[in-house]
Amino acid sequence: MKYSFRNDYSEGCHPKILEALTKHNLNQEDGYSEDIYCNQAKQLIQEKCNQSDADVHFLTGGTQVNLTLIAHALRPYESVIANEMAHIATHEAGAIEATGHKINTISRADGKLGTDDIQAVLDAHYFEHMVAPKLVFISNSTEIGTVYSAEELNELYDFCKKNNLFLYIDGARLGAAITAKNSGLSLETISANCDAFYIGGTKNGFLLGEALVITNDKLKSHLRYQMKQRGALLAKGRIFGLQFQTMLENDLYNSLAKHTNEMAKMLSDGLRNLGFSFLIEPETNQIFPIFPVEIIKKIESDYGFYIWEAINSETACVRLVTSWQTKTSDIQTFLKDLSQIM
Amino acid sequence: MKYSFRNDYSEGCHPKILEALTKHNLNQEDGYSEDIYCNQAKQLIQEKCNQSDADVHFLTGGTQVNLTLIAHALRPYESVIANEMAHIATHEAGAIEATGHKINTISRADGKLGTDDIQAVLDAHYFEHMVAPKLVFISNSTEIGTVYSAEELNELYDFCKKNNLFLYIDGARLGAAITAKNSGLSLETISANCDAFYIGGTKNGFLLGEALVITNDKLKSHLRYQMKQRGALLAKGRIFGLQFQTMLENDLYNSLAKHTNEMAKMLSDGLRNLGFSFLIEPETNQIFPIFPVEIIKKIESDYGFYIWEAINSETACVRLVTSWQTKTSDIQTFLKDLSQIM
Amino acid sequence: MKYSFRNDYSEGCHPKILEALTKHNLNQEDGYSEDIYCNQAKQLIQEKCNQSDADVHFLTGGTQVNLTLIAHALRPYESVIANEMAHIATHEAGAIEATGHKINTISRADGKLGTDDIQAVLDAHYFEHMVAPKLVFISNSTEIGTVYSAEELNELYDFCKKNNLFLYIDGARLGAAITAKNSGLSLETISANCDAFYIGGTKNGFLLGEALVITNDKLKSHLRYQMKQRGALLAKGRIFGLQFQTMLENDLYNSLAKHTNEMAKMLSDGLRNLGFSFLIEPETNQIFPIFPVEIIKKIESDYGFYIWEAINSETACVRLVTSWQTKTSDIQTFLKDLSQIM
Amino acid sequence: MKYSFRNDYSEGCHPKILEALTKHNLNQEDGYSEDIYCNQAKQLIQEKCNQSDADVHFLTGGTQVNLTLIAHALRPYESVIANEMAHIATHEAGAIEATGHKINTISRADGKLGTDDIQAVLDAHYFEHMVAPKLVFISNSTEIGTVYSAEELNELYDFCKKNNLFLYIDGARLGAAITAKNSGLSLETISANCDAFYIGGTKNGFLLGEALVITNDKLKSHLRYQMKQRGALLAKGRIFGLQFQTMLENDLYNSLAKHTNEMAKMLSDGLRNLGFSFLIEPETNQIFPIFPVEIIKKIESDYGFYIWEAINSETACVRLVTSWQTKTSDIQTFLKDLSQIM
Repeated sequence: MKYSFRNDYSEGCHPKILEALTKHNLNQEDGYSEDIYCNQAKQLIQEKCNQSDADVHFLTGGTQVNLTLIAHALRPYESVIANEMAHIATHEAGAIEATGHKINTISRADGKLGTDDIQAVLDAHYFEHMVAPKLVFISNSTEIGTVYSAEELNELYDFCKKNNLFLYIDGARLGAAITAKNSGLSLETISANCDAFYIGGTKNGFLLGEALVITNDKLKSHLRYQMKQRGALLAKGRIFGLQFQTMLENDLYNSLAKHTNEMAKMLSDGLRNLGFSFLIEPETNQIFPIFPVEIIKKIESDYGFYIWEAINSETACVRLVTSWQTKTSDIQTFLKDLSQIM
Repeated sequence: MKYSFRNDYSEGCHPKILEALTKHNLNQEDGYSEDIYCNQAKQLIQEKCNQSDADVHFLTGGTQVNLTLIAHALRPYESVIANEMAHIATHEAGAIEATGHKINTISRADGKLGTDDIQAVLDAHYFEHMVAPKLVFISNSTEIGTVYSAEELNELYDFCKKNNLFLYIDGARLGAAITAKNSGLSLETISANCDAFYIGGTKNGFLLGEALVITNDKLKSHLRYQMKQRGALLAKGRIFGLQFQTMLENDLYNSLAKHTNEMAKMLSDGLRNLGFSFLIEPETNQIFPIFPVEIIKKIESDYGFYIWEAINSETACVRLVTSWQTKTSDIQTFLKDLSQIM
Repeated sequence: MKYSFRNDYSEGCHPKILEALTKHNLNQEDGYSEDIYCNQAKQLIQEKCNQSDADVHFLTGGTQVNLTLIAHALRPYESVIANEMAHIATHEAGAIEATGHKINTISRADGKLGTDDIQAVLDAHYFEHMVAPKLVFISNSTEIGTVYSAEELNELYDFCKKNNLFLYIDGARLGAAITAKNSGLSLETISANCDAFYIGGTKNGFLLGEALVITNDKLKSHLRYQMKQRGALLAKGRIFGLQFQTMLENDLYNSLAKHTNEMAKMLSDGLRNLGFSFLIEPETNQIFPIFPVEIIKKIESDYGFYIWEAINSETACVRLVTSWQTKTSDIQTFLKDLSQIM
Repeated sequence: MKYSFRNDYSEGCHPKILEALTKHNLNQEDGYSEDIYCNQAKQLIQEKCNQSDADVHFLTGGTQVNLTLIAHALRPYESVIANEMAHIATHEAGAIEATGHKINTISRADGKLGTDDIQAVLDAHYFEHMVAPKLVFISNSTEIGTVYSAEELNELYDFCKKNNLFLYIDGARLGAAITAKNSGLSLETISANCDAFYIGGTKNGFLLGEALVITNDKLKSHLRYQMKQRGALLAKGRIFGLQFQTMLENDLYNSLAKHTNEMAKMLSDGLRNLGFSFLIEPETNQIFPIFPVEIIKKIESDYGFYIWEAINSETACVRLVTSWQTKTSDIQTFLKDLSQIM
């Protein structure tokens, strides 16, 4: 295979991370993220969020963060509101339901939720024979690559506060959202406009690791108990601390994400020039071009990607994902190969 | 602080692991432990277990393995039988109960279970107003540092099979058990005498990672669904594969464990020479000497350790843990310091 | 209020039930449905189902039966397939999710599922990042009053068996389905065409009580453990036995249901004569006429009913339910009142 | 069999209950305990508790009340403290664990808990690797027939409030406790000294039904959602209302319990006169005499009872339970038969 556009976690990690792990490898430190590196990384995150009293926790992956935070936020009869494409609704093997909670889904092609969508769910749930919706789950960027701007987040969060709902952001690809064109996003604008979110590491050059940031006091107490109970408290938490320190210094996190988006832009521009259309307008590092099935068959041995959905019997939408490791030459080769078989 | 005997996960990892991570860092591989390194590591483990059809899965930590396997093995009304000191019964924040299952505990000072103990639990549970005990949980080495020999495992497993019970071994410190004096243990004798167990990495020189080995066909199906649902399927599973490959080549895993036990032996011999007694006879890398409270106060600023339990108003049992990184000089300095303040 | 069409459980129970309770009141019997009345009732049900080895259990209400059976049938990662109007999906306050399981819903206006609907869910769930659909849930009659005929059940069950799925029928209004025109249904044809179902008592003249019938051996073992764990094992189970005996003798159960359907037919015919249309063609004792909002306002003080959904700003669909206690005169008065305010 | 002392729910119900059910049978009422009878019964209970703002809910049985209230009171990582004989710890098939919560048990022969017992559990749980004890569960009368006096309850509740713990009382046999000699108990003293409790109906002459009384505001919100989710919201809740009305008028509830205790007193006095000793001093309607095994064999065909535990190879403790239906002649015949075979 020449190159895989299957996802943004096909490689190891940014070399600076391995340097940091190596440099501090044999120091004795306390376990379970109570080491010096985690403490420093937490402080760095608080500073960048401009929230000195935010709680920061490190976990190993997105599903783990989602299920831990949601199980922590909800009473047994409370439910989550999410787009029907939401990762928790489709690709977490029922992780949320396994903690006892229903997900009320909304069908919307852009992968997002608006206040009217949420209001409709609230209206439909009005007495004790139904679940009580309590937490709004959004991903930014979304599972279909779209972005909630700072302004949109602000509107959503206002609505949630007025309706006594928690707003939680799955940030598996938060870097891609922050560095998307005109998003107006930063750790500061994000943390000001939700009750909790996580800064995704795995898909932006970490070995593993996500940083859960909790700004709402109601969600803070006993979160480490919840983590431990879900198997989410890592003994050598130091590896989270070292990675986040490395990535947040000199803005490496955003630099990698910016590069990733740029590669996606080059790719989508190239595809557009070749005459392809998209299921949805590309905004970040996941793009969804529509290819003739014949072309898919011709390129799938050389290039890795997922088929997103059939459009009709002759065309299908595929998902192409760029990463911090994608090079200009990877894009160029792909576009050239594509043009030659068209 | 001069040295911490608090646990065996205070450092990073064996340097060879960082070398392997660095060497293979930028290769594109499939995610979720379907990469080439994991495949090779699984094969290596199957070979060492002499079980070519065993299933092998990689997870991030002990609590995660325990809750995933137990949730997978049991029907809702079924329970676990365990020693009351078992990690799942004390130090996992109710992780097993959070998956819906009761733990029937047995009080026994050596941290182990015998067939008579298990029979007593079975006898006490005989109809549908009670839980139905179904899985026997043991740790090897145990939470109090003792070891089940190959012979003892064999006797337990025979009993379990006769009584239609699963036998599952928490191997957080499996290396310490295997390399304990006269244990008769090996991956082969262990895997032949239980339905599932895990090879603990975190406490024996890994960055993170445990390998769950399932030998009973009844427990194999859909285990990856269970993992995903519990947030235990790591995107960059490659880091497990690379670590286990590194550790199983040239028997590095056992070498590290052997060293760890030898350091504990040197430490317990030295303490005995100084006149101290033990809560329980030392067998592996966790030892439980009884110290006067006055001495504890004098050494606790220079040395890290946990107070296990008060013996009386003047003495207490402390837990001292050696690791793959403990050096002869660390032991010597500690014993010398101790002798000077007595 | 003149009369309530709100539901079919607004009254107490058929007088013969109170007679039976009174007659046998002071006999000492074993608890938890191990009394003589339950044993006889179970045998009666087995006979009417023509399944001498079916297991029969008595529970207090529909939600309780549904959650108990489904929790019993599924492994943690398995899900239920249901119409999006299914009681478990809408009006059980997340009871199924509270046992850990996702419901995959299908949107279909007649409240039913076809084999193609189920196939589509199966096709969309193909690997371990998703739940594994395992149980098909249908209600008969459905929440919108429609009926699966014996033939339809047979087709569904064949499909389920071929696809290794359980078929479970919520029979809260099973009597209404059995006595619906041309349904071809009987306890015998129903029990031959599913893995488990329940005979609803509450909505057909019982004080309380539903009889769960399990025909698939895989679902039988330890069901009483599951019931006890869910708080569904009633101490004085005798009251179930006495009720089912009373109702199954002389076919009283079907007689009441038949009457109920006849009252609904009289009501829907009358409404049609008055010019009203229906959201869906009436088949059983729940009918869904569409009324002008103005009329609704005029009748709602004299008659009880639920507004099902708004059709537009001027009309809405209401749900009218007849019961074993509805009298011809209740219908006549209602139709007359309605005609006078039109 | 001449007479069964197996339990206090072997008969139907007090005849006045059947009268009430019959009298109001065909009135149309709202479902789910929103009928006029339930409303009146709730008010009656509030008055007798002297707590006009207490919440009152009706459920079908003790296990159901326990699991619903406890699931409602606790966050996922919180646990229950109970005596190891507690019904929830032994005879509810893991119902509490099935809602996700651990029970921390205390071994004490009198079936009770003291403040020192609870303090010991609190001391042993101090960080996030352990569960966080939050609710103290006691039964009154206990599973071994003993009684917490009003004074003892007051001391426990003071302790719980100081330690931020909920105190919940399982009142399956609350009548037996209230009418025990010198208990000082009444609905008023009980409701003033706990956060929630239930008034047991099933074991004191009801067909079925328990009334959960919640006095702590923190536990009140959304309890009906929790009930619905657990299958504990009965459609024809009217049968609870009618029963509690009947039983609370003219103090019938206490009269029946008083009679039950008197029968137990006559029985224990008679046994003592015959020279038998007891496992624990009889206080209420469950008594635990120690019989030679030979005598047990001779009486077990004529009298129903459970063997509680073996004392040695020649003697065993049996449980004898009197009920609201036990007659003086039943006791006399039993004692006479016993004396003749000694």
